[in-house]
Amino acid sequence: MTDTPVGSAATGGGAVEAGVEGLPGRVMVIGSGLIGTSIGLALRARGVEVLLEDRTPRAVSAAVERGAGTRATGSERPDVVVVAVPPGAVVDVAVKALGRFPEATVCDVASSKKQIIDGVRALSGSDDRFVGSHPMAGREVSGPGAAEADLFEGRRWVITPTARNPQDRIGQVAAVAEACGALVVRMSAQSHDRAVALTSHTPQLVASVMAAQLAHAPRQDVMVSGQGLRDTTRIADGDPALWTEILASNAAEVGPVLERLISDLAEASLSLRDVPQDGPSARRKLAEVLKRGKRGRDRLPAKHGGLAPKYRTVAVVVADRPGELGRLFDTAGQAGVNLEDVRIEHSVGRPDALVELSVVPDSEQALVTALGAGGWRVREQ
Amino acid sequence: MTDTPVGSAATGGGAVEAGVEGLPGRVMVIGSGLIGTSIGLALRARGVEVLLEDRTPRAVSAAVERGAGTRATGSERPDVVVVAVPPGAVVDVAVKALGRFPEATVCDVASSKKQIIDGVRALSGSDDRFVGSHPMAGREVSGPGAAEADLFEGRRWVITPTARNPQDRIGQVAAVAEACGALVVRMSAQSHDRAVALTSHTPQLVASVMAAQLAHAPRQDVMVSGQGLRDTTRIADGDPALWTEILASNAAEVGPVLERLISDLAEASLSLRDVPQDGPSARRKLAEVLKRGKRGRDRLPAKHGGLAPKYRTVAVVVADRPGELGRLFDTAGQAGVNLEDVRIEHSVGRPDALVELSVVPDSEQALVTALGAGGWRVREQ
Repeated sequence: MTDTPVGSAATGGGAVEAGVEGLPGRVMVIGSGLIGTSIGLALRARGVEVLLEDRTPRAVSAAVERGAGTRATGSERPDVVVVAVPPGAVVDVAVKALGRFPEATVCDVASSKKQIIDGVRALSGSDDRFVGSHPMAGREVSGPGAAEADLFEGRRWVITPTARNPQDRIGQVAAVAEACGALVVRMSAQSHDRAVALTSHTPQLVASVMAAQLAHAPRQDVMVSGQGLRDTTRIADGDPALWTEILASNAAEVGPVLERLISDLAEASLSLRDVPQDGPSARRKLAEVLKRGKRGRDRLPAKHGGLAPKYRTVAVVVADRPGELGRLFDTAGQAGVNLEDVRIEHSVGRPDALVELSVVPDSEQALVTALGAGGWRVREQ
Repeated sequence: MTDTPVGSAATGGGAVEAGVEGLPGRVMVIGSGLIGTSIGLALRARGVEVLLEDRTPRAVSAAVERGAGTRATGSERPDVVVVAVPPGAVVDVAVKALGRFPEATVCDVASSKKQIIDGVRALSGSDDRFVGSHPMAGREVSGPGAAEADLFEGRRWVITPTARNPQDRIGQVAAVAEACGALVVRMSAQSHDRAVALTSHTPQLVASVMAAQLAHAPRQDVMVSGQGLRDTTRIADGDPALWTEILASNAAEVGPVLERLISDLAEASLSLRDVPQDGPSARRKLAEVLKRGKRGRDRLPAKHGGLAPKYRTVAVVVADRPGELGRLFDTAGQAGVNLEDVRIEHSVGRPDALVELSVVPDSEQALVTALGAGGWRVREQ
């Protein structure tokens, strides 16, 4: 299992650039939803000919109207076919595409890979032309109306080739991803599915189950909630129907992660029950899992691919009215300080907000000094 | 069980104001850590005489040097004693203070209330003068050096009186909290402990156990992590020793919440296992818990105490260099748009960031127009 980046990402910066190596000249996109339409828009901006198809003619019309390509007539011969239909329909549509276009490379965009690749192999003798892929495009909204040419800008796009895929077919899919502005990462299907089970699918389920505990709680209990609970449950806002499909399609990998997590929670629960009788030993066990959590969190990647540096946080009290944040960030910018992260914490019943600015340790003093000079109410953490 | 706000919060805005009703003239703070020293600083800024005590003389010296008060000689007669020692020592110190100062109101600042109130009642005949309280001061850092006069500014401060507490003693503690800039909320000890078990203590443990799954995972799996996992595990960065004490002191209320959560997770785990055999029914059960999570999350309070309004999110691609955020927020401010929240999403290996701006629906169009006119790369979500 080797996970190596393929090529480099297209440069950001706003200007449309030509010249992604190996970019196919004609791409068919089947499925005119958010993902398919966004891919069409991005490829059109690179000058690629894009043919659109959807079992709902109205969806194609909307995508054409957005400028994502032209309606396929059925007689064209695309170099690459992108299957961008709901997870449950991918295998069927991909197998048909391999049959309809005997020269084309076919790829998909679903969140779980092994089930789909196995399915295509079982049903088609041409699976050497099928390349699994997964653009990790953050947030879940739907429909061609929500599509944007830069939906994949700066996002990772995982490609999961098999030993049967020739390099030039893999390269065609990588070129499509790069043309969309994504950073291409190559993994085996199994390691992709295992990785997203751990880092995306299980956290999604855990956030939802945590948030579900609030559904029937007394209102005054929920009112005590702070920023911590808001953060831990944010992704529970996702679309239940879509996430059901994603979880079901990766059940084989999510299952074991979830079981380990449940077992660790059950152990913590036992320790809590033992506190009155066996305080020191129960506390030791609780401390151990909390420490392990801290170690796990330290392994999260930071931006630019390095390990998370220990940022310093500076908190500022900011009035809740237009322009105040602009004034605040102006002060930081004029001091030459680069903000790594920003969190705004609102408190129930207060007109002000606490804004937490994260900076590299070397910039902390400069920021505090600049804010102080600018009359801001700073609170070092 | 009635949870009613007591009085109103002190007004924010930076200027030190006198005149919190019923503010005691002389307060002793026992424990010169972060919380005790911050309370001293806040009360001094209001002109209150503050006497400091700690079993470590050096801690008192540091707090005195910060301006949090003067070292207690032992002969003063405080109106209010604030016990700000580690959770495990609160009962002992509070009972001694009730004995040493037969006229004084004594309060504490620990995160769980029932165990402490029961402990004081069991050991002192004067527990009518002991008022439990809990300033919810967000983040965990320690020591008098980290203290700030505005640590409690805009935070909630829960007071948990019993039927034995006279109103004037409750009012004295509320006045101390308000003088610190906090918003006072009054609850029974049990409903406080139940509420924080649900909204703070259990989420803390869940975030830690989720993050703990990353501790021994292959590095390439962890590298696929996105903003979702970062958010769901952020609070796992907290101090394990402190959180062990907090969880142990509220084990009776955390236990049942954790057990319900484990049981819901186990049910989801069974549904995942049933997917291959019994797809439709398993999917229905998964969808049900995801929907319940969405409903629970909708109940989270927004700022200003209302229910969470449905903000609209506008995403902007921003170069990762000093001043860019300032320019961005300037644009919003000049358009008269108030930003409700800001999230910065960094992607591994990319030089740019995606900045998501949350605004009330009515402001969305004005923001998008202003950003477009300002040359920003906007992406509507």
